[in-house]
Amino acid sequence: MSHTAVRGPEDDDAAALFKEGFRQHAAGVALVCATGPEGPVGATLSSVASVSADPPLLSFSMARTSVTGAAVLAAGSVTVYLLRADQADLAHAFAVRGSERFTPEQGWRTREDSELPVLEDAPARFTGRLSVVVPAGASWLALLEVDEIDLGTPGTPLVHHDRRYWAPAALPSDPPGV
Amino acid sequence: MSHTAVRGPEDDDAAALFKEGFRQHAAGVALVCATGPEGPVGATLSSVASVSADPPLLSFSMARTSVTGAAVLAAGSVTVYLLRADQADLAHAFAVRGSERFTPEQGWRTREDSELPVLEDAPARFTGRLSVVVPAGASWLALLEVDEIDLGTPGTPLVHHDRRYWAPAALPSDPPGV
Repeated sequence: MSHTAVRGPEDDDAAALFKEGFRQHAAGVALVCATGPEGPVGATLSSVASVSADPPLLSFSMARTSVTGAAVLAAGSVTVYLLRADQADLAHAFAVRGSERFTPEQGWRTREDSELPVLEDAPARFTGRLSVVVPAGASWLALLEVDEIDLGTPGTPLVHHDRRYWAPAALPSDPPGV
Repeated sequence: MSHTAVRGPEDDDAAALFKEGFRQHAAGVALVCATGPEGPVGATLSSVASVSADPPLLSFSMARTSVTGAAVLAAGSVTVYLLRADQADLAHAFAVRGSERFTPEQGWRTREDSELPVLEDAPARFTGRLSVVVPAGASWLALLEVDEIDLGTPGTPLVHHDRRYWAPAALPSDPPGV
């Protein structure tokens, strides 16, 4: 029924096994953006989670080796955008090195009240400051204290799973409510 | 194009707006289980994220008011199960107060090497100890140091979005790779 494997953390294969396990997971997709020393920076995240509504807090993680991550963690103000399924190209652009980012064609607008270009078309935009940053293995785990919430065009969310993008669809049988 | 609202955290509506924003998000679904003072406890989570593969670390959050949460955070050993789309009933049982849990019919097996019943059919099972627990507003943000990884039957993951369960489906247009 199951092909079970058990490994300890000392095992060289633990990292590979952990990754294989998480390829079974699904995640919503978001962008994290901030102003770095050389202008706006952004990255695609599949680790954004709502932590607390009152006060509003969300968490995400970024690799310690990420240059964008370093700029985001050093920034005084950080913005997280949730993405819709029709924004997969945007997620791709911010996930792949060397892609064009923050272009008007992608929907970014320069606004007088913000240092950063703004993506007004995102279904939800959360801006605030990082109140906790915890070193966590090869990554940083960060907590964003949200002080501005903007809701844009709603829609089907973008899902990341097994190195591809997807959209949620109804379960074959009647799904239970939560 | 967008119905934008901007609020500060002092606003009474900030919590409602934050929740409305996160209804636009999608998340993978998992169970977190541990042995409490009165036996096995478990809860459904939509906040599990992979943080680091080497060493293997994952994060999740639980409400401070949750009795199960308190037992999980106090436990020496914690297990997180990722769930498949065909396991929505299991997610429902661990999300709703008073439901039957840890039954053989749900796939739980008692094993000699474990205090906790084990769900061998989960696509991935991560066991370890909580190395960091950060108070985060109305919740705890926890980091699990994984020292045992078991892979069961793989399959389409269960997705939570807008208070319902879903399964990932192909995007209408060709999705970009990551």
